[in-house]
This record gives sequence, C-alpha cells and structure tokens, in this order.
Amino acid sequence: MPIERIVILGTGLIGASAGLALRAHGFSGQITGWDPNPAELADAERLGAIDSASPSTIDGAVLAARSSQVVLLSGPVFTILEWLDRLAPVLQSGQLVTDVGSVKNALCQHARDSYNLVHTAGFLAGHPMAGKEVSGAANAEAALFDGAAWLFTETPESRSMHKASRAIADEWRAWPAKFGCRVLDLEPERHDVLCAWVSHLPQYLSTALSALLEDEFPDKDEILAIGGRALREMTRLGASPYSMWRDVAHTNTEAVAASLLALEQRLTHLRENLRTPELRDEFDRANRFREQMRAGKK
Amino acid sequence: MPIERIVILGTGLIGASAGLALRAHGFSGQITGWDPNPAELADAERLGAIDSASPSTIDGAVLAARSSQVVLLSGPVFTILEWLDRLAPVLQSGQLVTDVGSVKNALCQHARDSYNLVHTAGFLAGHPMAGKEVSGAANAEAALFDGAAWLFTETPESRSMHKASRAIADEWRAWPAKFGCRVLDLEPERHDVLCAWVSHLPQYLSTALSALLEDEFPDKDEILAIGGRALREMTRLGASPYSMWRDVAHTNTEAVAASLLALEQRLTHLRENLRTPELRDEFDRANRFREQMRAGKK
Repeated sequence: MPIERIVILGTGLIGASAGLALRAHGFSGQITGWDPNPAELADAERLGAIDSASPSTIDGAVLAARSSQVVLLSGPVFTILEWLDRLAPVLQSGQLVTDVGSVKNALCQHARDSYNLVHTAGFLAGHPMAGKEVSGAANAEAALFDGAAWLFTETPESRSMHKASRAIADEWRAWPAKFGCRVLDLEPERHDVLCAWVSHLPQYLSTALSALLEDEFPDKDEILAIGGRALREMTRLGASPYSMWRDVAHTNTEAVAASLLALEQRLTHLRENLRTPELRDEFDRANRFREQMRAGKK
Repeated sequence: MPIERIVILGTGLIGASAGLALRAHGFSGQITGWDPNPAELADAERLGAIDSASPSTIDGAVLAARSSQVVLLSGPVFTILEWLDRLAPVLQSGQLVTDVGSVKNALCQHARDSYNLVHTAGFLAGHPMAGKEVSGAANAEAALFDGAAWLFTETPESRSMHKASRAIADEWRAWPAKFGCRVLDLEPERHDVLCAWVSHLPQYLSTALSALLEDEFPDKDEILAIGGRALREMTRLGASPYSMWRDVAHTNTEAVAASLLALEQRLTHLRENLRTPELRDEFDRANRFREQMRAGKK
C-alpha cells in the first residue's frame, strides 16, 4: 500500500527540495507543507514542492501531521526535537515520523520513550548529506540529493516499531534511492562521529577562516580582487546560517570539538615544519587521500 | 613594435595555459617552449600551446631565451630563481624576463643586481592567481586565466629598466587583460602577505585537513561514501604537488606561518565557544565576509 499523504514540516531548502524530488520521481500522493514562515511556505507552494500549505500555526502543523502517513521534519536539530515532543502524543501506530537533521544520536535518544512503541508512531532518523550555504525554499532543487548519501540510523527501537509503521518506513526508505542517493545505514553514534569529520568540521573551519579574514581585512577590496577559486571554495560555507549550526554545536559538541582540536594540532605541526622534510610527508598523505577520493568517484 | 618571439621556460599547467591564451587572443608571433620533461613539452606542442619545442637541455633553454624578446619563466619559485641566475649573463637590454611565480619578494630581491640595468635584460615579476590542483600541460586551458587576477610587482629597479626592455614590458603587461584578467600592481612585500592569506593559507589548510583525514581513516570507504560537496571542496587542494608548495613554504615562510598561527588560534576560539553566544558572532562575521564577496562579484 503506497504512501498517500506526506507532510513536510519545515519547507526550507531541504524540506522543499524533498518535496520537489518526490514529485520529480513519481510520487503521486498528496504533499502538504508547513513552515513557521509564511513566505517560505508560499515559495514552496509556488515552486510545486508541496500541493497545499497548512496554516503557519502550531495547530496547523499538528492537524496536517495527524492526517499524514509520513511526517518529514526538516530544520535545525532543536526544532526537530521540539516537534518530536509535540507530535508523539497526537500521532499513532501506522504513522511514521522521519527527519533530515544533521545530528542523529540526540534525536534517537530523545525519541526512545515516545516513539516506536505499540500504540505510537514510528520514528526513523534520516540525514541527506546534501545542502547549500544558502537556505530557503527559493533555493530548493529536485536534483539536490542526486549523487549524495542519504543516511538512516536505525535503532533497536526503530527496528521494532509497529508493523503498520514499519511498512511505511520501508516504503519511505526506498525514496532516496529514487532521488539518486546512496542509501546507507549507520549506528547513530557512529553517524555523529563521521559527520563531525566530513561535514561539521568543514563547516566550522570555513566559518572560522571567513571570520578571521573579516577581522584581518576591514577593507576587503584588495583580497577580493586577487582571491581566486581557492579562497572562494574554502570560505563558501562561511555563508551558512548560525541557526542551523548552533544546534549541531550543541548536540554533537564532543565529536566536533575533537575534530577541531585534531585540526588545530595538525596546522601547528605543518607550521612548525614549513622548512623541514616533514612538509613533504604531509603533502604525500594529502595526495594519497585525494587519490583515493578520485578513485572512489569512478 | 609588437612582440615577435616568446619563449616559455616550463610548459606545465601554467606555462602551457599561457601559450594557449596568447594564441586564443590573437598573438601572431612565434612561441617556443622548453621544459626539462620532454613529455610535458610534447603535450604542450600537441595542444598548440607552443609552435616549436627547444631541446630539453640547459643549452636548449638558453639558446631559445637568447633569441626571444620575452622569456616567460613558469615553475616552482626555486626553479625560477635558478633561471634568473642562469639567464642574466646571456641576455641583454631589449629583452624581458617575466614570470608566473607564487612568491614575489624573493624573486625581486634576487633579480635586483643582475636585471634592469643599462646593458641587462629587464625583469618584470608577475603572478596569475589561477591554477588547478592537478599539474601538467595536459590540463592546460586557454581560459584558465579568464576572470582571475594577474598581479605585477614592479620595483624601483623594474621601473627604471632600459627603455627597449620597457617597451616590451609594457606590451607584455597588456596581454593578461586580453586573457580576461584583472591586472593589478602591488609592492612585492604586500603581494606576499596578501597571497599568504588568500592563496597559501587555503593551500596548506587543505593539505593539513586531507593529511589528517588520511591518518584518521585508514579505511576510507565510509567517509568517502557519505562525504559531500563540503568535504570535496575543502580537500580539493590536497592533491596539489609538494614540489611547488615547498618553494612557497621556503620563500614566504614568515607570512604563511603568521596566517597559519592566526587560524589555529581562531579554531581554538571557536572550539572553546561551541556552546556559547560567541559562536553566533563568529557566524555573523563569516556571513558578512561572504556577503561582501558576493557583492564584489556582481
């Protein structure tokens, strides 16, 4: 029995892109959208990411969630946590809550006692490894997830959700592959550690570098005139919004701090070896890393 | 009187791209190529970056340089330094040596007593802010410099070069604009400080991050499967060759070390503030930096 009704709570960049991707890949059911910001919601509707918009009130979201088989939570981690709390008592078995949040262990822990029980909705934690440094439905694209990984972090609890919810979950799990994603399963803790390295560290690094350049060059004409692709790429994520990354910093603090500390130490090591043969070894290691990345993309 | 004969000493990525760009933008004179590696030279000739190849011996290079009005030195900084030494005694006024090296003060200092004198060739230091993480003539493109800055670092000595050399220098200075470059003049010391921030720091940072990930993940299947654009971008320069960046590390050590130290301290600051409101300020600063970069591109 196919999914007939999906509600996307949070029709920003990722939520609206999910709606567009569902539509582009043949989802024929109803997609309702909700967002606290009526402008985002209007953008999502105008772009065809959603069929209809639920009023931008808490009640509007709850009502839409109650009548959907899939509730897709899209937004910063703390916002997703709040929705998990709010929706648990009003949903029931046969319904599935899933999400696209950047941190998974905190969400899975939070859902443990109020989802995946006999009479409750199921919760399946998910995370598409796609995004942009700009937010908002206006930047959404059906192809955003194409070629990206879509991670799921099943837990003992999610694996034992009510079979009516499980049927919906299994069906939902099939959609990212249709979007062109590599679908992978990870333990929540492992997800958070890996994402600290490949996603969160690059983000905070780009923010720190951009902030440093902002302070170092009050007049930016000169560096902007001479900077090339390296500068643009390494600072691109400097445009990312605090609202989203504050929540990552709060909910994956330990893993993020460990990766930042390791990078600090590595930069110190390189700086102290600018004129020694150890610099060659660092370049060799970096070359090997990129060689494997290139080989992996074939 | 237009430039009729140019020799490119070092027909790798940048040298061969310069040949292609000259041709694409209407240079009708003779372009001779030389490279210590015959395979690079053959690639450059096959691609049409040069009209003819001089034998891959020191004598081959010297002979070609003696019969050219412009000698373009392309390669790592120490290689350019060696050519400056070798060519000074065999060239004369009316000839111009220019280069594309990443560091300028060491080169300008080095040329001071053997160029730009009454009977010697002129030396005009130049630096196109373009490149790729992959080297070699096979990766050369006529459009490589389009939209990039091409920096010149004139000195009191270069400004007083023999008028016959000056005429050639002024003509050479007009070519990068035809390639689509923003042509800018900087003092050599200022050039090296600015490039430490916008080019050298991004390079060593990307190398350090790539080397760290190489050590941290002996088995890379997992991180390569989940990593997205952020990981690819932040490590792209990890593929850059040591040979070129060793010379930058040796000839711009102080400015590079200062920028690395500043970034280390900034990352420490961010790490210590992952859960404080200071994180918002860092994101605000980074957002402002990128906003100005975006506005500057309009």
